[in-house]
Amino acid sequence: MSTALLTDQYELTMLDAAIGSGRHERQCVFEVFARRLPDSRRYGIVAGTGRLLELIEEFRFGDEELGFLARNSIVSPTTIDWLANYRFTGDISGYREGDAYFPGSPVLTVEGTFAEAVLLETLALSVLNYDSAVASAAARMVSAAGARPIAEMGSRRTGERSAVASARAAYIAGFSATSNLEAGRSWGVPTMGTAAHSFTLLHDSEEEAFQAQVDALGPSTTLLVDTYDVENAVELAVKVAGTGLGAVRIDSGDLATQVASVRAQLDSLGATKTRITVTNDLDEHAIAALRAAPVDSFGVGTSVVTGSGYPAAGMVYKLVAHHNEAGEWVSVAKKSTAKATVGGHKAAIRTMENGVASSELIYQTVDARPEVEGRELIVPLMTAGTADAQWLGDGGTLAARDHREDAMAELPQTAFRLSRGEPVLPTLYR
Amino acid sequence: MSTALLTDQYELTMLDAAIGSGRHERQCVFEVFARRLPDSRRYGIVAGTGRLLELIEEFRFGDEELGFLARNSIVSPTTIDWLANYRFTGDISGYREGDAYFPGSPVLTVEGTFAEAVLLETLALSVLNYDSAVASAAARMVSAAGARPIAEMGSRRTGERSAVASARAAYIAGFSATSNLEAGRSWGVPTMGTAAHSFTLLHDSEEEAFQAQVDALGPSTTLLVDTYDVENAVELAVKVAGTGLGAVRIDSGDLATQVASVRAQLDSLGATKTRITVTNDLDEHAIAALRAAPVDSFGVGTSVVTGSGYPAAGMVYKLVAHHNEAGEWVSVAKKSTAKATVGGHKAAIRTMENGVASSELIYQTVDARPEVEGRELIVPLMTAGTADAQWLGDGGTLAARDHREDAMAELPQTAFRLSRGEPVLPTLYR
Repeated sequence: MSTALLTDQYELTMLDAAIGSGRHERQCVFEVFARRLPDSRRYGIVAGTGRLLELIEEFRFGDEELGFLARNSIVSPTTIDWLANYRFTGDISGYREGDAYFPGSPVLTVEGTFAEAVLLETLALSVLNYDSAVASAAARMVSAAGARPIAEMGSRRTGERSAVASARAAYIAGFSATSNLEAGRSWGVPTMGTAAHSFTLLHDSEEEAFQAQVDALGPSTTLLVDTYDVENAVELAVKVAGTGLGAVRIDSGDLATQVASVRAQLDSLGATKTRITVTNDLDEHAIAALRAAPVDSFGVGTSVVTGSGYPAAGMVYKLVAHHNEAGEWVSVAKKSTAKATVGGHKAAIRTMENGVASSELIYQTVDARPEVEGRELIVPLMTAGTADAQWLGDGGTLAARDHREDAMAELPQTAFRLSRGEPVLPTLYR
Repeated sequence: MSTALLTDQYELTMLDAAIGSGRHERQCVFEVFARRLPDSRRYGIVAGTGRLLELIEEFRFGDEELGFLARNSIVSPTTIDWLANYRFTGDISGYREGDAYFPGSPVLTVEGTFAEAVLLETLALSVLNYDSAVASAAARMVSAAGARPIAEMGSRRTGERSAVASARAAYIAGFSATSNLEAGRSWGVPTMGTAAHSFTLLHDSEEEAFQAQVDALGPSTTLLVDTYDVENAVELAVKVAGTGLGAVRIDSGDLATQVASVRAQLDSLGATKTRITVTNDLDEHAIAALRAAPVDSFGVGTSVVTGSGYPAAGMVYKLVAHHNEAGEWVSVAKKSTAKATVGGHKAAIRTMENGVASSELIYQTVDARPEVEGRELIVPLMTAGTADAQWLGDGGTLAARDHREDAMAELPQTAFRLSRGEPVLPTLYR
């Protein structure tokens, strides 16, 4: 399926006009960055990169796409011919997926002709803004949960394809599993889920429903115990599944008190190994509030797939440099108030002091690398239009998940406070 | 492309267990409704219905999908065989797309066997929750803008496929156009867009850029005038395009004062017909604040595609009735606190008094229709697995857009206040 029309019309009309002025073949550098973090956050997580690289490889104009553009006279016939042969042949570099980012971090750099690179703006931002919003929220939930696993189960609270991206982004941010089957198939994210209230309501009694579930899924399954009365249901659950019952799930009510009494009841019934999972409208703050409660795992829906209040990461895609007539690089930047940007092709280092990250140091690639201790943040992602396979598919997703853990381990402990605050690292320009 | 795995795993494990207990063939009624509106809103707009009907027709399990389920032992081999022949053969009815909804409105009713109907839960909610969140926010922007057109340009602020859904939902809610080309191709939404700041920065001067754009797109184009200095750019724009210049676009700064001075400048240059469009971080409140300003049209991005603070509509999909062993209907409902639901297969009437809507009246289909004046809200959408063509494609989208206008015209004027308030119609159960 072509991704070429997942694009704002103005990318195409700019191409059309640039072909007219002859400027379309100027070599350009576009940069993706966020002007600020959502205001309660101390760091952001880059996500979507691996997905984006695959979507760029499908960014081709076939008969369907060209026919639409021609019928609606969106671009000239000359431009239609140009698009028929389009594929991105430039270079893309950027932050590793799963890394932390801060205001101004050059998370993606796209190098190519204006014509080739401008067309990718909308797709790049759609993917990075949504996936990074989810991962940035998810990472806070993961740190709030400590060692207890969290499953993503918000597919019903976001667009049906965003649900797949969301499951992947949450997994990269440290969630352990998802309810979304397509995320399992497409990206190797572990999937989970057993039953909803409708299953209990379908049967003539709660006992009949529990028995049917245990017969099909075994006693290690998770039984949902809040369709009618929680105390009765817990007793019934252990009666039906035995003390080897895997888990009970609670999806409503006042969780802190409910969980404590269910734990006591399970223990008194001898089901001391039966876990308790809770899934009722959780976000990072509700998870933190359950720190002292005997919860064994969490399921999070709405708040993670909607970025916990910040459903778009606010990244922008800006032209920062282009060749002039003499073939020399010229830095460019919009000058207007409030949205001013820093021009030039950039590199970035996460500087370290005593093994802890101390700043996001950004410098121009035309300058020498500053002599500081630290980790280079920008890696090659796509060379001459071909993506590096290590960032793609299940393997790339798992690598991003591992990298997030490493990147988190470098940050100062104050990064993990849930309260509002400044970015935990200052962004410095050299 | 199959939509079958855009599904929470528990739908499949419930099916598996219900096949085991023999209850999977019980006739069931599932209902989609919202327990409440987002708390600042006085009505919601149903959107996504036409899109959902098309996605349900693609809900089939092919080798890819069955292979994934089998390899991961998610369901038994018996269930795999059952799924291989799956297609939904039941009936779906519901509110017309574009209609208003209120707490408890039965916006979608799915009738079929438990097995056939339970599988559609996740997909139905993903589509209706996202699209309705966008349409509900968009409708408020449309009423705030009055007669002035609004274009949707938020593709970069939501997942790349949600962007297409968003453009369609905003159009249904009364937006006039979108920047998203795929929404044009797939759903017939009018598309728009001319140039971004990068186009100006690419060229050696603003004048060269404006000239290139006018050469390619004609003087009726929209020139972006805030890359460097707005006053200089407006003068240049009229110099290059002439007084027939279509429009200027302002994307930054203090819009109210900026717009007034640009209008005065355009008029003094003789460009009295040149329109002014503004696109800087607008939502319904910012649009309302510009009521007295000489703005001719708006472009809205982030806030519309993220539901202006409420990115998911909060609809749920609940089993409300099923056949018992004797083949008689039994109403069912979850009893637990805070999330209790009303059982039974329902119908709904928007009651009218003196030509103005007065309540959302909900009654059980087994009872006689209450003798009240009003409009029946539920229409057939899919019969025996086949969608009614009038709700699909470009035609269905346009019909939904027209229907929204009619539905809005029925509501009391207080519906259109932007301040927080109660739902404008009470929901009554008969």
